Amino acid sequence: KFYVIDGYAVAQKTGMGSRVNTIMQTCFFAISGVLPKDEAIERIKYSIKKTYGKKGDNIVQQNFKAVDQTLEHLFKVEVPACADSSLELPPVVSAKAPEFVQQVTAKMIAGKGDELPVSALPDDGTFPVGTAMWEKRNIALEIPVWDENLCIQCGKCALVCPHATIRIKVYDEANLAGAPETFKSTNYRGNEFKGQKYSIQVAPEDCTGCGICVEICPAKNKSEVRLKAINMAAQPPLRESERANWDFFLGIPQADRTKIAMETIKGSQFLEPLFEFSGACSGCGETPYVKLVSQLFGDRTLIANATGCSSIYGGNLPTTPWTKNADGRGPAWANSLFEDNAEFGLGFRLSVDKNTEFAQELLKKLAPTLGAELADAILKADQSTEEKIYAQRERVKILKEKLAGNTSTEAKHLLVVADYLVKKSVWIMGGDGWAYDIGYGGLDHVIASGKNVNILVLDTEVYSNTGGQMSKSSPRGAVAKFAAGGKGTAKKDLGLMAMTYGSVYVARIAMGASDLHTVKTILEAEAYDGPSLIIAYSHCIAHGINMTDGMNQQKLAVESGHWPLFRYNPALAHEGKNPFKLDSKLPKIKLEEYAYSEIRYKMLTKSNPAEAARLLELAQNDVNARWSYYEQLAAMKFEGDVKK
Amino acid sequence: KFYVIDGYAVAQKTGMGSRVNTIMQTCFFAISGVLPKDEAIERIKYSIKKTYGKKGDNIVQQNFKAVDQTLEHLFKVEVPACADSSLELPPVVSAKAPEFVQQVTAKMIAGKGDELPVSALPDDGTFPVGTAMWEKRNIALEIPVWDENLCIQCGKCALVCPHATIRIKVYDEANLAGAPETFKSTNYRGNEFKGQKYSIQVAPEDCTGCGICVEICPAKNKSEVRLKAINMAAQPPLRESERANWDFFLGIPQADRTKIAMETIKGSQFLEPLFEFSGACSGCGETPYVKLVSQLFGDRTLIANATGCSSIYGGNLPTTPWTKNADGRGPAWANSLFEDNAEFGLGFRLSVDKNTEFAQELLKKLAPTLGAELADAILKADQSTEEKIYAQRERVKILKEKLAGNTSTEAKHLLVVADYLVKKSVWIMGGDGWAYDIGYGGLDHVIASGKNVNILVLDTEVYSNTGGQMSKSSPRGAVAKFAAGGKGTAKKDLGLMAMTYGSVYVARIAMGASDLHTVKTILEAEAYDGPSLIIAYSHCIAHGINMTDGMNQQKLAVESGHWPLFRYNPALAHEGKNPFKLDSKLPKIKLEEYAYSEIRYKMLTKSNPAEAARLLELAQNDVNARWSYYEQLAAMKFEGDVKK
Repeated sequence: KFYVIDGYAVAQKTGMGSRVNTIMQTCFFAISGVLPKDEAIERIKYSIKKTYGKKGDNIVQQNFKAVDQTLEHLFKVEVPACADSSLELPPVVSAKAPEFVQQVTAKMIAGKGDELPVSALPDDGTFPVGTAMWEKRNIALEIPVWDENLCIQCGKCALVCPHATIRIKVYDEANLAGAPETFKSTNYRGNEFKGQKYSIQVAPEDCTGCGICVEICPAKNKSEVRLKAINMAAQPPLRESERANWDFFLGIPQADRTKIAMETIKGSQFLEPLFEFSGACSGCGETPYVKLVSQLFGDRTLIANATGCSSIYGGNLPTTPWTKNADGRGPAWANSLFEDNAEFGLGFRLSVDKNTEFAQELLKKLAPTLGAELADAILKADQSTEEKIYAQRERVKILKEKLAGNTSTEAKHLLVVADYLVKKSVWIMGGDGWAYDIGYGGLDHVIASGKNVNILVLDTEVYSNTGGQMSKSSPRGAVAKFAAGGKGTAKKDLGLMAMTYGSVYVARIAMGASDLHTVKTILEAEAYDGPSLIIAYSHCIAHGINMTDGMNQQKLAVESGHWPLFRYNPALAHEGKNPFKLDSKLPKIKLEEYAYSEIRYKMLTKSNPAEAARLLELAQNDVNARWSYYEQLAAMKFEGDVKK
Repeated sequence: KFYVIDGYAVAQKTGMGSRVNTIMQTCFFAISGVLPKDEAIERIKYSIKKTYGKKGDNIVQQNFKAVDQTLEHLFKVEVPACADSSLELPPVVSAKAPEFVQQVTAKMIAGKGDELPVSALPDDGTFPVGTAMWEKRNIALEIPVWDENLCIQCGKCALVCPHATIRIKVYDEANLAGAPETFKSTNYRGNEFKGQKYSIQVAPEDCTGCGICVEICPAKNKSEVRLKAINMAAQPPLRESERANWDFFLGIPQADRTKIAMETIKGSQFLEPLFEFSGACSGCGETPYVKLVSQLFGDRTLIANATGCSSIYGGNLPTTPWTKNADGRGPAWANSLFEDNAEFGLGFRLSVDKNTEFAQELLKKLAPTLGAELADAILKADQSTEEKIYAQRERVKILKEKLAGNTSTEAKHLLVVADYLVKKSVWIMGGDGWAYDIGYGGLDHVIASGKNVNILVLDTEVYSNTGGQMSKSSPRGAVAKFAAGGKGTAKKDLGLMAMTYGSVYVARIAMGASDLHTVKTILEAEAYDGPSLIIAYSHCIAHGINMTDGMNQQKLAVESGHWPLFRYNPALAHEGKNPFKLDSKLPKIKLEEYAYSEIRYKMLTKSNPAEAARLLELAQNDVNARWSYYEQLAAMKFEGDVKK
């Protein structure tokens, strides 16, 4: 027997958004006959009340409505005795995919991984990167469509996209030769690439349809107020044409990295993302930060990734979202244990440093044969900007050409390590479960080391990947697993703790509250020659929010004073300036206004109103006390170093 | 062949203090004949230069002198063909020792532990406590002798004693009946025990001869300025008489705990130490704190001890320094792993709380049969002072008597857990290797829990027990293992990190700088109903100091601003007061004056003077910056909680 239902249509009609679990459950009982129909429906409703009652009556009623409307949308399909269609199932991956993807990845995507012989798998555990691009999931019901005339070319849509499926490019008009008919392009408005063309393009089969790009778009259509410069539209009718447009878009060369003003939103989005199409939730609040790092530091990035969501969407089977650029280069990525990721990343740094040192020693020795001028230029190179780093890459390229013909042992050794003469960017990433709890001892040890590593904490304030357990980052009053009655203690202030060293760059960011602050801070942190810790507010399905509003929730978190933005730059203290800058304004809304817009807090008002009120009061006191403390920190005097 | 040498005499004569390793090494080569004598001496001197060269020429010359004077003090003893002495070796332990000590402990002390059958050992791993008192090591060449006429009865000597071998008692004159002839006693001068007698007594065979008690004694003899109210004198002539005096002294009852002003130095020392005669180094800087905790909180203390010196001297075989009072009660002590001690101690707290809760539930149920008045008094008891705790103990005693005759299941259960109705004091102890490094992740987790535990960090600024490796507590510029070139980064400010929670009582103490501050702070920390963290400066042999000066080094650490004393009491912040009190005065000496009085810093000026100077400058900047930061913290405004 074969039944079909357009579950999403029912969900949308009944206010369930894109949630179809209740609808599909109703179908199961309607078809399976394990219970009489009426009894089954009664029990489903009882279970809905039990499960969602704490989250509010509105949600219960929506679910009831969905149950009631399910059956009239459920249709039986008569299955013919034998298959007589001439349609063939399309191949799992494109014929253009590399051999490994065709032979191995595609088998796994098709659910036939068990058929793979062990010999087909990489024998050192290193998996080819950039394979997520071949897994066309087509999960979005709607995708964004660009209105090139309304667009103000701010780049925000591309910045916030969790899956790198909406991108911008600036390019020479000549590249438009052979463009598909529906490919959109407009004149670029900025000064830095004057006279060039500009396009926004969506990857229609990779987009998850979260709609955050539309939500964030600041350009409004004055003639039709519900429209912006990008708008959601049904995907199926657009799939074919946009697929061709996407392929064409990919063929347009990236703008020259050394010419891009990467400290601007738009500039940062002209940089190619080397992290794309991950399996993160639709609307994920973590991945925009991860993607941004891949753009800003590109192929010279090394990433140690803690266990958690980011290790799963960052390196799960069958496909890998980390990818490489046109030169075949990309970030190096690996995941170690939950409890040792900071140390793991410190190891990256130490081995990079040791290799660099070795390369420098060899280069000094070989200088007479290789040319003193080149050796000197490499050894003394300033690599503080992208442009200077690229100049060094060119020098190292020449060096390697010279070394190729040299048969001495030292030359052979130098050839192996020569790439370490170019600056690398070491990143240690993970969630709050790692950074505040399980891996905190190591994180503390690593920031104390004084070594140049960059730590990015994707702070969802809860163990997201394992199903929403409380961490020390969870705020007072929020409900989580192991804190079913609301967390009784205040959120740990990881940033303030790291600042006590006086030698660690520390910052708290929230892309949805200030995207520019986010971009500038990440660049500043990376430029600091010592340990940096960036704590990034990451909205999450575990917060009980509509993920389309994720960036707005971030804004509320900052405006309520729950998440004050700041930067602490140790270099300033030595100069006699206050290293701590409070970057957000005095809270302008009550904590309640932010907190009760999220189910994680709101649900306690249903299950235990008195306790909810008590915790909210304490939490508001936390906010007040922290703000006052930060303000006074920001006003402190620093005398600076006294030199003998 | 049998040779003898009075190694200590040579050491003392040549300025080596009590260090005899060079002297004994010279003896070995002189007797063994493995090398010609002159060559051997030449090589010993070469080795001395290599080993101690970095510590300064003075030390090298002292060692050379010791080598040169060794041979003339080395005598051969003619061994008779057969033993003809009528002397018998005394028994290993006193005949008064309990059976277990006689049968098991004594065997181990005698070095014959291998002869013990497995069946002789406790089958649950629980060892009898208070066994250190039976191991009379007699290692002190000199012991302190009291001048009762000069004494001002301050109690400082007893407070600072690392081995609890010098004690004070206040008692009724009647107790002097039957006192040995040489037993000293004088009129007590205080108001609280008016008309009573006062004695200071040394345990001559347990004293290690460190001399700290004499060093700390503030009473000077005006007629003979080198003398104080206690003075070192050779032990052998005093051994017999003082042994009898000590035994007599032990028999004098302890003063009533509920009547003692324990927040004073003298008062704290009228309390019986339940930690005595440990195997810690002579002059240890940690043990006075440990002993003090055992005095202040007595038999209601539970201690979770981290791995490190304190776990070794706290629970090593063959003897245990933790002991019990005349009622047979004492602290409960256990050691877990290096990496989980804070969690281990939290477990103590949670199980105590659960048992208390269970006892309270049972008591409520049984109130009608046991008497509502008694039940009510127990359930609502205020246990904020020692006196009130003792009143509760009396009530629980009555309760237990009543329960004894009750055969109901609930009564039987209550009898088992009734003692949990009396307040317990949970302590988590360890060194900086544990607290700052290996166990820090757990320590952080435990202070975040908000639970009522007291954490005592015995901070020697180095991994003392394993031989002096650098920890995150090690100060900049100090030399340690893994920091042979001087530690390049600043000391971690554990206290400041803990304060960021705003819910943790935090303090930094140094007994040698302010003993009264130490006692008051420990009491205040314990009284705080939440997590407390006390960081205690503990001088150590690893610092390269004369241990007799240990308390003075503590004073210099504070006076130089390296170790500012403070208390942070969260309760004050809620009332709108600044919770942070900087308890020490503006630094009055340069860091150099303190640092270069310790070999751990000084040795770098020999091995790498330029680096030593550079690090000292940075370290002085650390001190200046921290002091300025603390001063500004102490001046901050707190608005307190806003109640709805």
